Amino acid sequence: MPLVYVTRRLHFSASHRLHCEQLDEETNREIYGLCNNPNGHGHNYELEVTVRGEPDPLTGMVIDLKELKEIVEQHIISRVDHTHLNADVDFLRGTVTTAENIVLAFWHILREKFPGNELVELKLYETPRNIAVYRGE
Amino acid sequence: MPLVYVTRRLHFSASHRLHCEQLDEETNREIYGLCNNPNGHGHNYELEVTVRGEPDPLTGMVIDLKELKEIVEQHIISRVDHTHLNADVDFLRGTVTTAENIVLAFWHILREKFPGNELVELKLYETPRNIAVYRGE
Amino acid sequence: MPLVYVTRRLHFSASHRLHCEQLDEETNREIYGLCNNPNGHGHNYELEVTVRGEPDPLTGMVIDLKELKEIVEQHIISRVDHTHLNADVDFLRGTVTTAENIVLAFWHILREKFPGNELVELKLYETPRNIAVYRGE
Amino acid sequence: MPLVYVTRRLHFSASHRLHCEQLDEETNREIYGLCNNPNGHGHNYELEVTVRGEPDPLTGMVIDLKELKEIVEQHIISRVDHTHLNADVDFLRGTVTTAENIVLAFWHILREKFPGNELVELKLYETPRNIAVYRGE
Amino acid sequence: MPLVYVTRRLHFSASHRLHCEQLDEETNREIYGLCNNPNGHGHNYELEVTVRGEPDPLTGMVIDLKELKEIVEQHIISRVDHTHLNADVDFLRGTVTTAENIVLAFWHILREKFPGNELVELKLYETPRNIAVYRGE
Amino acid sequence: MPLVYVTRRLHFSASHRLHCEQLDEETNREIYGLCNNPNGHGHNYELEVTVRGEPDPLTGMVIDLKELKEIVEQHIISRVDHTHLNADVDFLRGTVTTAENIVLAFWHILREKFPGNELVELKLYETPRNIAVYRGE
Repeated sequence: MPLVYVTRRLHFSASHRLHCEQLDEETNREIYGLCNNPNGHGHNYELEVTVRGEPDPLTGMVIDLKELKEIVEQHIISRVDHTHLNADVDFLRGTVTTAENIVLAFWHILREKFPGNELVELKLYETPRNIAVYRGE
Repeated sequence: MPLVYVTRRLHFSASHRLHCEQLDEETNREIYGLCNNPNGHGHNYELEVTVRGEPDPLTGMVIDLKELKEIVEQHIISRVDHTHLNADVDFLRGTVTTAENIVLAFWHILREKFPGNELVELKLYETPRNIAVYRGE
Repeated sequence: MPLVYVTRRLHFSASHRLHCEQLDEETNREIYGLCNNPNGHGHNYELEVTVRGEPDPLTGMVIDLKELKEIVEQHIISRVDHTHLNADVDFLRGTVTTAENIVLAFWHILREKFPGNELVELKLYETPRNIAVYRGE
Repeated sequence: MPLVYVTRRLHFSASHRLHCEQLDEETNREIYGLCNNPNGHGHNYELEVTVRGEPDPLTGMVIDLKELKEIVEQHIISRVDHTHLNADVDFLRGTVTTAENIVLAFWHILREKFPGNELVELKLYETPRNIAVYRGE
Repeated sequence: MPLVYVTRRLHFSASHRLHCEQLDEETNREIYGLCNNPNGHGHNYELEVTVRGEPDPLTGMVIDLKELKEIVEQHIISRVDHTHLNADVDFLRGTVTTAENIVLAFWHILREKFPGNELVELKLYETPRNIAVYRGE
Repeated sequence: MPLVYVTRRLHFSASHRLHCEQLDEETNREIYGLCNNPNGHGHNYELEVTVRGEPDPLTGMVIDLKELKEIVEQHIISRVDHTHLNADVDFLRGTVTTAENIVLAFWHILREKFPGNELVELKLYETPRNIAVYRGE
């Protein structure tokens, strides 16, 4: 049976601040520059969630894309949309909110949520030009 | 010799209806929701065709992108553009026209059409947010 | 008081067929070409709705963009999304479903729906390259 | 002499909170919903600045687009990029940071900055789907 | 009868050099900077052509968008696509190929080409961020 | 430790001509068609550079995306932006400037520039529809 990849793209708007609590203020400013601004800044994030599986012989679907969307909305989007990622999101507490760390945190939440299929990639656009991808490696 | 991937993006406009003939009407409505509307609905599909090969040492091309485009237009686009995928496309007859099944059907047509190169990926955007990919696995 | 324009962009997927009932079949084929295919074809339409008004001195809003979105979803999107525009949409019955006629039909529905503000433009993308605009002229 | 419009598109990332100080907390929550989140949220804003003028008969330019870009970067982008619009931007202090009010504030700063040409439109994309425009009316 | 605007978006790839023959080399370099590079540089241009008219009561079309496209391809695109605008395009000879001047030259060619309708706007994207518009003023 | 991919998208505008010096003029015209125009043509190229590595446990970054951007700007963008790729770029001299060959030439320059991380992919958009990718195979 063939293995097909299906991807759903979702978006959320959030603010964040790049700041590492184990480093002093000056080092934080040196490392993160403008992104260390104490009051934060924000983005229209885009998240692409890709799962792989065999299309069901009857329905022709790997997973209902509406269901895929609802799973990600329930477990991720509803918890991060219109929030300050550092202050409002429990599963990011104590994490520097780089795109790399955000995508890893999303992965840990989503990886068990598609029984029968395999989560193979999360792609996070912080801006259309800054992107982080995790594939479970 | 290095292996390079070249991709051509093409588009077509088509209508379709998600409906499985082996299932009764009520089950179809439950599974496919609005997509089961008897009169169908439609999309501006985008198709990305990727082949991999060694650039010719003289011409610098894996494949002439114009030729790649013409092959896909001849074998796919001309047969699906401005059609109802369920009713008008012979090679989709009897298939539920999910993005997964469409991309598999395209693969079977295109895989032998690039002698000297390898078809490595078909990516079909049903909408900018709903995507199916097949890589021959 | 300044006048500001606010625009909300919404989308819907639909199929349609260009066919004029007052003309015979051959003339229809000549005029509309592929778009006259009896089984129809489809698009991911994008609709931009623009209203103009004075921002409320307290709230800073011409109109709550969420409310603008909900009004258009209620009166337009819910009636056209995942439909065949010719067959399923009562307010388009008997109309050739060109982008021009669709945008005019939407205007007649929406023009009275923003009391306190003025509907000034509807912009309909049939594809990213084919666009119709109505401004009430 | 013909009048030509030239537009430069620029971007900035910022966070904000919709909150009106003259209203109590409950009313703020009712009006602004998720956008009233005390810790704010954020966007990748896109700003299109349009000026109109006669192309110089020698240079063929209404205004050097690089100069247009630098003027807007100096007076707007450098003051709002990577900031919290409510907390960090002096010219927005005391203003509800709706897209409408932001675009009006930008206008007051930019309108005198293009001597010899006329600032005719500011278009602010809060998201690709939420847009405010001011034309000096 | 209502007046509707229809727009077709077309693209072409071309190279150009900003250089004014009436000015000396040093002044050209000062004014145009990198754009004055003697060997030129290039762009994927996008052109939006907008005409306004009354939809035909029978066909529902202001103008057949396919015909609009073919007119612009014949008179503009076929003459500028895959060319060096300064060297290869007769109607641009002696003109500094700024976006402003290009759009004016296109206007003079296209304005008489839509009898029964009115050419109301040409919008030329030199890049997604640099845009010139002419409306016949 | 997890391996994360980070991508930065950059752009440059350049002209080029497809022409193979080892082939005669007629063969060149046959192979490259319009792209063989002696005066060249041009594009707004987009380049996506992807490196893979472990996020630093303290900073949460695989590589500072600003630093990634600056490395690519220094070694690639500053040498190709606003140039004629055939005439002005030393590292492309004698190369047919197909997207395949350009991406290979960029790879040889960039592959040693990210110590501690691995350059895993270069993706070059000649247009939004014509794309070449190299992954070091």
